[in-house]
Amino acid sequence: MACSVEIICVGNELLIGKTLNTNAQWLADQITRLGGKVTRIIEVGDDVQEIASVVKEAVRREVDFVITSGGLGPTFDDKTLQGISKATGKRLKLNPEALRLVRDRYKEMSPPKRLRLTKPRVKMAILPEGSSPIPNPVGTAPGVLVEYRGARLISLPGVPKELKAIFERIIAEMIRRKSGGVAFYESSMVVRGIVESALSPLIDRVMRRNRGVYVKSHPKGGEGRGGALIELHFSSTEKDREKARERVIKAIIDMARILGKTRSGLPRNPGCPSLFSF
Amino acid sequence: MACSVEIICVGNELLIGKTLNTNAQWLADQITRLGGKVTRIIEVGDDVQEIASVVKEAVRREVDFVITSGGLGPTFDDKTLQGISKATGKRLKLNPEALRLVRDRYKEMSPPKRLRLTKPRVKMAILPEGSSPIPNPVGTAPGVLVEYRGARLISLPGVPKELKAIFERIIAEMIRRKSGGVAFYESSMVVRGIVESALSPLIDRVMRRNRGVYVKSHPKGGEGRGGALIELHFSSTEKDREKARERVIKAIIDMARILGKTRSGLPRNPGCPSLFSF
Repeated sequence: MACSVEIICVGNELLIGKTLNTNAQWLADQITRLGGKVTRIIEVGDDVQEIASVVKEAVRREVDFVITSGGLGPTFDDKTLQGISKATGKRLKLNPEALRLVRDRYKEMSPPKRLRLTKPRVKMAILPEGSSPIPNPVGTAPGVLVEYRGARLISLPGVPKELKAIFERIIAEMIRRKSGGVAFYESSMVVRGIVESALSPLIDRVMRRNRGVYVKSHPKGGEGRGGALIELHFSSTEKDREKARERVIKAIIDMARILGKTRSGLPRNPGCPSLFSF
Repeated sequence: MACSVEIICVGNELLIGKTLNTNAQWLADQITRLGGKVTRIIEVGDDVQEIASVVKEAVRREVDFVITSGGLGPTFDDKTLQGISKATGKRLKLNPEALRLVRDRYKEMSPPKRLRLTKPRVKMAILPEGSSPIPNPVGTAPGVLVEYRGARLISLPGVPKELKAIFERIIAEMIRRKSGGVAFYESSMVVRGIVESALSPLIDRVMRRNRGVYVKSHPKGGEGRGGALIELHFSSTEKDREKARERVIKAIIDMARILGKTRSGLPRNPGCPSLFSF
């Protein structure tokens, strides 16, 4: 059982390079560990038409989940739900449950901060018809879940602390269930004194001999400089974690053996590969 | 004159959350400062069909530049040029100029590293027909430029040092020229003691009174906690930098005046807003 996910991050601050997109990495890491497969990550600006387009395109690709981050707050440029409304044709409406969540959050605040439900605050409770609000334990804007053409569209706030809290409490379990307990295992081996182009045929060989293991080289410096490190990343997705782990370890040992025997392309420093990490 | 850019980052390591996409942020920041406008950032895996799809979609949106990062190296999973070939219908062919660049790089390496032009090394010189290779001053895989249906498709290596070197030496000037000298100016003001939902109508007012300035709030903590900081980011794109700067400063002063007068929504700590930064 597969569980495919597209991540859509909304915010002009991403497109002008002001903000590093740590949310996308965090979500992708979590989803992968839960057995899901992130198939695409997209960053768009605070623009209703753009948000609607990318949501529609994701749904057309028949993914199981579309997770958006950002654009749920009280200000004019928080447009994610308008975008989802436009993409799905579900009209924006005051959601009583969401309004209760927003009101409760403001009530919890101690007296000088007990704020009225002004228009910008009520805005956070105006959701596409048929949505379920998801409680935000550490902020005011609730997350939003709406189903559309077989996909679950989940909107999370862009503030990392809030995004993480909602994901961990509610979304993680949905993804784990959908992916049917599939497990991802990864490990790295670091080699020194061999250039990436010389590793290339060895990687091919190891992948042919270790089905189900994906091996990728990550050079840590330009080729040809003495002592440059290359990380070899091994990963596998299996029905159970032990099986995935076993395959990865077996492939790493295979690579180590091949590297130990290979001379072509290796410079003459003795003891290559010089670094391993399991 | 506008200059629109889509950034496509290729690599499974992005989709599994192993790697933080610092390339996208760096490119977006540079392009914005050069007067260009990044309209979308997309991350896809090492998959020819996926790369081809996102390149085609970007060209269909009629952007001026499509800049890819990653997938140019010697290993089997470096598939960006196959994707561009598939998207454009331009067949992959050995490019003599690129081969010369690759050969020269290997020749520069001192004797034990003088490596033969093996198949994985030659792979870095196999480009879509009609491409121009772009010298890589700090690595072996050249960048690639190919024009297609009015868009310039530029492929850069994923190693940050190499991506930056090629961008700064060659691509920056192309973007500056295309954007016709338009200038981006940004500055931030940091306020404390006011929640985002209370700032919302003030931001609306400042934007109405300061055309051409975009104001966006970035909460640095959940609403309602005493002393939470909110960054107000002001930006403007104008024909010349002085004009953009003037507009941004004027809007910041306007916001400071409004904040000084406003009482509604402000807690009673005196001296709000408490922090400014120009």
